[in-house]
Amino acid sequence: MFPQDIIHQKREGLSLSKEQIDIFIEGLHNGLFKDYQASALLMAIFFNGMDTNEIYHLTDALMHSGDMINLDQIPGIKVDKHSTGGVGDKVSLILAPLAAACGVYVPMMSGRGLGHTGGTIDKLESIEGFQINLTISKFKKILKNVGCAMIGQTKTLVPADKKLYALRDVTATVESIPLICASIMSKKIAEGIDSLVLDVKVGTGAFMKNINDATTLAKMMVETGKKLKKPTVAVLTDMNQPLGYNVGNSLEIIETIECLKNKGPEDLMNVTYELTAHMIYMAKQAATLAESRKKVKKVLSSGKALEVFASLIEKQGGNPRIIDKYSLLPKAKKRLALTYIPRSLLKKSGPQKGYVHQVDALLIGKACHALGSGRASIDDKIDPAVGINNICKIGQPISEGKVLCQIHYNSKKQLNNAIKYLQKAFVIKRHAVEAPKLILKTIR
Amino acid sequence: MFPQDIIHQKREGLSLSKEQIDIFIEGLHNGLFKDYQASALLMAIFFNGMDTNEIYHLTDALMHSGDMINLDQIPGIKVDKHSTGGVGDKVSLILAPLAAACGVYVPMMSGRGLGHTGGTIDKLESIEGFQINLTISKFKKILKNVGCAMIGQTKTLVPADKKLYALRDVTATVESIPLICASIMSKKIAEGIDSLVLDVKVGTGAFMKNINDATTLAKMMVETGKKLKKPTVAVLTDMNQPLGYNVGNSLEIIETIECLKNKGPEDLMNVTYELTAHMIYMAKQAATLAESRKKVKKVLSSGKALEVFASLIEKQGGNPRIIDKYSLLPKAKKRLALTYIPRSLLKKSGPQKGYVHQVDALLIGKACHALGSGRASIDDKIDPAVGINNICKIGQPISEGKVLCQIHYNSKKQLNNAIKYLQKAFVIKRHAVEAPKLILKTIR
Repeated sequence: MFPQDIIHQKREGLSLSKEQIDIFIEGLHNGLFKDYQASALLMAIFFNGMDTNEIYHLTDALMHSGDMINLDQIPGIKVDKHSTGGVGDKVSLILAPLAAACGVYVPMMSGRGLGHTGGTIDKLESIEGFQINLTISKFKKILKNVGCAMIGQTKTLVPADKKLYALRDVTATVESIPLICASIMSKKIAEGIDSLVLDVKVGTGAFMKNINDATTLAKMMVETGKKLKKPTVAVLTDMNQPLGYNVGNSLEIIETIECLKNKGPEDLMNVTYELTAHMIYMAKQAATLAESRKKVKKVLSSGKALEVFASLIEKQGGNPRIIDKYSLLPKAKKRLALTYIPRSLLKKSGPQKGYVHQVDALLIGKACHALGSGRASIDDKIDPAVGINNICKIGQPISEGKVLCQIHYNSKKQLNNAIKYLQKAFVIKRHAVEAPKLILKTIR
Repeated sequence: MFPQDIIHQKREGLSLSKEQIDIFIEGLHNGLFKDYQASALLMAIFFNGMDTNEIYHLTDALMHSGDMINLDQIPGIKVDKHSTGGVGDKVSLILAPLAAACGVYVPMMSGRGLGHTGGTIDKLESIEGFQINLTISKFKKILKNVGCAMIGQTKTLVPADKKLYALRDVTATVESIPLICASIMSKKIAEGIDSLVLDVKVGTGAFMKNINDATTLAKMMVETGKKLKKPTVAVLTDMNQPLGYNVGNSLEIIETIECLKNKGPEDLMNVTYELTAHMIYMAKQAATLAESRKKVKKVLSSGKALEVFASLIEKQGGNPRIIDKYSLLPKAKKRLALTYIPRSLLKKSGPQKGYVHQVDALLIGKACHALGSGRASIDDKIDPAVGINNICKIGQPISEGKVLCQIHYNSKKQLNNAIKYLQKAFVIKRHAVEAPKLILKTIR
């Protein structure tokens, strides 16, 4: 069986066997499947897709390409949450201590983000001294003592996925639903979890732009989890406007702490509550999902989750005093409030008074990226201080001179680039409009 | 413009610009387009095709990736013929001296075949001493003096196509009509020709299995020739049964000489006459195509084409005495006549007397390959002596004990492998059947 025969088979729309998928993934490592053959196969998969069995075999092969973390010594059902990524999505940071405070063990490993802002671990690195590279034994120890731990993926975890993703990134084969599914599921399951909650974002600021694609991906992941005996629930949530008021690395740490102090924005809290409730229920820390939903709110308002977060920061080398003193976090040199001007020269005029109809998540994300909060390639440095906060929300009333958002910037050039995006991000109309539905669908 | 953006554009079904195609082809050489990006793009082209302009730009870019041969010092309109390849297709060997004898200059450059038998230059190498690697100045000198010359492609001719083809071969992206078109046209035009006649084979023994694909390819090539100001005519011809009676390298040289002696099989002669007539007409050596068709037959029967072939052999270092002494050519150790047995154990019984309904060209080709006449990879050695002759023809009457074909072999093992294919190649039925139509369509 030559690589070209395997490529040919997929090109003709036929399914690949477990053996063929193993040859592919092992071949990436042992050199029998050349990079140029892998990329041709990836493109054929982009066009012809994969069936449930193929995705299962691919996930399994990726998963076993490196170390599998064993968390058997940690008691109970270990549950993680994974988000497909959005703008202002700091849910993991709130949810992990919250779920831990509810009795769930949350072993969280994340990759660095390639996007508008950093990923979860980049955001945590805004906290001076916070260590995201820990040994597995240290990771387990913190997990056992604190209830959650948050580190970067080790090099030996799912190495074949790393290689495959690097190849996809430069061959225009990232946007393939089966490949996305296998990549996410293999990484999460290799972490040693028992169950998984997925937050599948839908909208302009998300990878999945429409509910159909998001549903397809969610079903695939739930099905793959089932086949791998790791119960998985997927919640589809709206990502047409940013989640919460803050976007940017240290700004999101601040908003996280506000949430844990029970002063978080409604949209962000609702998504966090729902996802955490699923985790609690899957970890059998509540008898029903309804009970779980009650428990999560109660625990949050008790302040216990904030204590867990403080403890996590301390155990991972950071200064927990940031919780009461945000000025310990990186701060941009300057701030600019962007206000609503109905007769702006750069866009068609809006009403003097009206309602926010659109806060384009993608454009807000791009503006933050322009400020320096994200990376385009894995070696880029991110600026933890910059970002945007006080972002207005769809449905909220607004009038001339009122703030649309506030920009935290470190250079005038970056500010100007960000403003180019922001000018197109907001749409104000005269008539009232409701806030978009946040929790769209649950697939299990 | 990153390679991944170009790949993405094609993946989304959009057309690539001349600039993008140039980046791709130049990038193959200067390393800006990695192999793994090229193969992903090739697969995207396989799925989404290319429009006329893209094919034109690709052909042009390939063509200019190396040396372009200048034949301006040779008088008149230089015309070449190219076949998409078939079983028993020795037309080039007959046609080049014949067209030359009719006053056309035929500069023929071929690659080595990767197929059931060698290509034109491999067949010529059956003649002891025949040199297929000549300097361009020697090539031009022979072309000028003899009227035709036949050599292998130089390394500096269309190097990007060589690289691309090598990549296509191992990434299951060979069977893409626009890529086939650009590959053929770039190589032929870089030879320095003014006009081109294409023999697009259709049938089991051809690359194009059905007339629709063959028509698409033919139209693309004719259109590309037009855009490059190289008038091109494509003739679609049948390749469901082998052309002529002989398949195998030295056996095809023998049949070539028989044809030039005016003793060739009807099917092979008719295809040769038709293609040569187009060349003569394009080279303005006849006022009409009808006149051209008369001229070609007349010249052949005059023996002048045989003289040209003898002169060509001599000028390229071979021994022209082979023309009268076939025993100077490589000869297989043994021969076996395969006869018709109606009640063979290995296939369902046929009538005692009947007509040949099928002589599967692909299976005959595979049988020859099994005897050692072809190569699977470019480094394989071919055996010039082996092959099959006396192959019966569709429509011919046959009865028990009569010969279906004769096998020339050098090892018992190879013979047995060949017989496995041959047992399935022939179908005999009671009722009479007409020979298949040979010249299917002309596109210009």
